[in-house]
Amino acid sequence: MMNLVVLSLFGVAATAFSVGPHRSAIHGGLHPPPISRAAPSARRRQPPLLAASLSPSVDGHVDNVGVILLAGGVGKRMNADRPKQFLELMGKPVLEHSVELFLTLPGVKHIVLVLDEAYRDTFRGRDERIVFAPPGEERQDSVWNGLQAMPEGVSVVCIHDSARPLVTQGTVLQCIRDANTHGAAVVGVPMKATVKESEDGQFVLRTIERSRLWEIQTPQVIQPALLKEGFALVREKSLAVTDDVSLVELLGKPVKLTMGEYENLKITTPEDMVIAEQFMRARQREETAAEHVPSR
Amino acid sequence: MMNLVVLSLFGVAATAFSVGPHRSAIHGGLHPPPISRAAPSARRRQPPLLAASLSPSVDGHVDNVGVILLAGGVGKRMNADRPKQFLELMGKPVLEHSVELFLTLPGVKHIVLVLDEAYRDTFRGRDERIVFAPPGEERQDSVWNGLQAMPEGVSVVCIHDSARPLVTQGTVLQCIRDANTHGAAVVGVPMKATVKESEDGQFVLRTIERSRLWEIQTPQVIQPALLKEGFALVREKSLAVTDDVSLVELLGKPVKLTMGEYENLKITTPEDMVIAEQFMRARQREETAAEHVPSR
Repeated sequence: MMNLVVLSLFGVAATAFSVGPHRSAIHGGLHPPPISRAAPSARRRQPPLLAASLSPSVDGHVDNVGVILLAGGVGKRMNADRPKQFLELMGKPVLEHSVELFLTLPGVKHIVLVLDEAYRDTFRGRDERIVFAPPGEERQDSVWNGLQAMPEGVSVVCIHDSARPLVTQGTVLQCIRDANTHGAAVVGVPMKATVKESEDGQFVLRTIERSRLWEIQTPQVIQPALLKEGFALVREKSLAVTDDVSLVELLGKPVKLTMGEYENLKITTPEDMVIAEQFMRARQREETAAEHVPSR
Repeated sequence: MMNLVVLSLFGVAATAFSVGPHRSAIHGGLHPPPISRAAPSARRRQPPLLAASLSPSVDGHVDNVGVILLAGGVGKRMNADRPKQFLELMGKPVLEHSVELFLTLPGVKHIVLVLDEAYRDTFRGRDERIVFAPPGEERQDSVWNGLQAMPEGVSVVCIHDSARPLVTQGTVLQCIRDANTHGAAVVGVPMKATVKESEDGQFVLRTIERSRLWEIQTPQVIQPALLKEGFALVREKSLAVTDDVSLVELLGKPVKLTMGEYENLKITTPEDMVIAEQFMRARQREETAAEHVPSR
């Protein structure tokens, strides 16, 4: 009971952090509800975890974050001489973009790089927070391996796919805050496409109301106790999941949607490399333009 | 009753056409069912239309096709000096790519260009099959206007968004054949993204099984009697639809899914222009490579 009371107080505090200045630009037509609406919902839905894991620092970020960075793909669809995470994007390997993002992200204490032995040398001795884990058969197995290598005591586990080099620190921080408050959170964007459901792959069954659909990206952030509980369930029942917060959904626990950016694409085909570079160049132009605006 | 019998025979014939040689490359993991499975379903689901409208020609395409080409957008999101359909893509306006595709597509008898008066000069006197219609307030209104300008007696109405310049003739022909057989058809691709449903836009309600989801594109092809019936219904009930075959779904009639290509993107933002150009260059390279393969 004591835990729940402390949790409620932190729940309100952490929700307040989630309305940061970068949100308005990202949200477009969709806005987060006012704090007065979100906070009671957060209290009601919050699973009873230890209050110790809810640790927003004074400047609004969550401390003691553990990152699992997935870089074990073999890149079958790229027709390249190496896995896609090692292809050059704007002068450095795709994976390097994520490594740098997490090494400079406030609150990150551990980074588990899920990476084949053959590619680890570049990262050895780079930063004491980096440790390694071997890739598994499926994504789910890679995350499991990463979790085994994660030191105890992190507040949340932030799982990111290194094939998404375009995610921004603002979005990652927001997702971490959301998971810290609600137990689990996933970055997504409202679906732009018209989507129809089909039972047989031949005829339309129905058109799904677009406003209810979200396209899911990474990071996906989960409190470690929940993540372990989810893994225990899927291992007991031999279930397969394609994304990480599905583990939490299977437990019947809440998963917060964190508004992301459409540019956070997953690099899968050679064309995606070109698209990613275009997005990065557009961002550079915007940053340069912003720097040249005279301050008043 | 006589109509229904004739229809069944044509239904089988048209289904046979739908397994063309270009399908295997597009389909990937998903294959059309064998003809023996599709034909009874086509007969069972076929709405009782006039057999005269079912007219595959001897070489496998449908004759007497009417096209509604939507080019009325004002391009608010492009930050450009003109609507997106007039921006240059690979040396010609975006709209021109679709106009050329349909002018050279076997079986096309009429093309209604839904286009503002101010932009029509380029197309006047170009081809006697081209007529014009004014853009409406919403997409639905533009299609309605296009339908009013469409001469009577076409076998199917093929509605295409000119902001999708990358569609291939193979895909369009297949969608026309499918609509000719089943009453209505829409081009789509199996969803690649992980999609979650949310009731409140804040928390995940559920993860939708990806294998059931299709991302819908254009063309959308509908037999004229069905299209008119659908419009009568939405006008009577003041409904709004975001895509054309939804009119047919509202009638409770079947809509065939025609396998399309992921490259058939809709140009909405400036980045999309760059992406479209990349896809077109990749196609050119493939075509050039194919030409240089020595024949045996």
